[in-house]
Amino acid sequence: MLVKKSLEEFNEVLGSDAPAPGGGSVAALSGALGAALVAMVCRLSIGKKDLEAYTNEINAALPKADDLANGLMRRVDLDTEAFNAVMAAFKLPKGSDEEKQNRAAAIQQGYKEAVQSPYAIARECLSVLALSKTLLGKTNPNALSDLGVAAQQAYAGLEGAIMNVKINLPSIKDEQFKSAISSELSQLLKSGREAKDEVYNFVSDKL
Amino acid sequence: MLVKKSLEEFNEVLGSDAPAPGGGSVAALSGALGAALVAMVCRLSIGKKDLEAYTNEINAALPKADDLANGLMRRVDLDTEAFNAVMAAFKLPKGSDEEKQNRAAAIQQGYKEAVQSPYAIARECLSVLALSKTLLGKTNPNALSDLGVAAQQAYAGLEGAIMNVKINLPSIKDEQFKSAISSELSQLLKSGREAKDEVYNFVSDKL
Repeated sequence: MLVKKSLEEFNEVLGSDAPAPGGGSVAALSGALGAALVAMVCRLSIGKKDLEAYTNEINAALPKADDLANGLMRRVDLDTEAFNAVMAAFKLPKGSDEEKQNRAAAIQQGYKEAVQSPYAIARECLSVLALSKTLLGKTNPNALSDLGVAAQQAYAGLEGAIMNVKINLPSIKDEQFKSAISSELSQLLKSGREAKDEVYNFVSDKL
Repeated sequence: MLVKKSLEEFNEVLGSDAPAPGGGSVAALSGALGAALVAMVCRLSIGKKDLEAYTNEINAALPKADDLANGLMRRVDLDTEAFNAVMAAFKLPKGSDEEKQNRAAAIQQGYKEAVQSPYAIARECLSVLALSKTLLGKTNPNALSDLGVAAQQAYAGLEGAIMNVKINLPSIKDEQFKSAISSELSQLLKSGREAKDEVYNFVSDKL
């Protein structure tokens, strides 16, 4: 499993000539790092006298941040598995008509998963951004830059995941599936950009 | 060492109530992931018939990407060490006048390192962005999204590192040091934004 590799080892296999892990797994990791930073900021804020008014909100945000961090971390492996499934489908036998049909179906199924995987990463990165936005002005000021970095990482994950959706979409023949995903992407990006800008402006104004 | 921890373990300690590792180490990691993706894209491009015209350029870019990936990975630990040095300085004895003086000097020295560390991360992230920009249109089109993700990660690292410079700058009393760093930040950010936009626009147009 990729998430069991050390940072060093992961970066080495990432930089190698193996096409996976690639950008999709990195987008998931980036979102997970953002979510973990939100969790850290919450933990560094609980019990601070000046922030007592926000205790309930911070206590509610913390498990959400932990869940997003864990969920996105799992997607590091899931995204590489989805990519490998497409590659495996291309290697299926294509001698008989039945084999050709089975292979084509497996490739299409593989591409659907290779789209759904980064699509889910993008949505979860947006959740990290939305969560960090709700915390502005309510957390430990010593960790202000950490909240800013959290939003940067989640946004990079969102953008990266969307690129991974887009590179695989043209291979899909199911037009309904394709247009359902396609129509969501611009809204995802718009919401993400707004949330990132709000966090960025808040943090930058105070730094 | 942080870089010896698994992705899972790193994210757990990141999300914990320990203030370090925090945003600075994440910015370094983000840059390292970007650099590794640039290296992967180079490796997936070498030997491709259609890209023969760019062989020399890609061969020249690859060791630079590997070096940036390794250098930024080392900075994951260095940044946390710089932060811990500041915390350790605050814990020095402050009984006698001499102790007070020593403690104040150690704190100032610590803050300088806690500024220089993310400043170096920001510059190296800019190098990753500049490198990815030189590769546009010259690499394997199957890895186009990976080049886009590389730029997103390097840019998130640049922005995050700059936030970490800015949060520590006000604690520094050496005005010359402060203004030397300060004056570079906006140029770093401007160059980074331009490079990121160029990569982003190129990649998005083709996806």
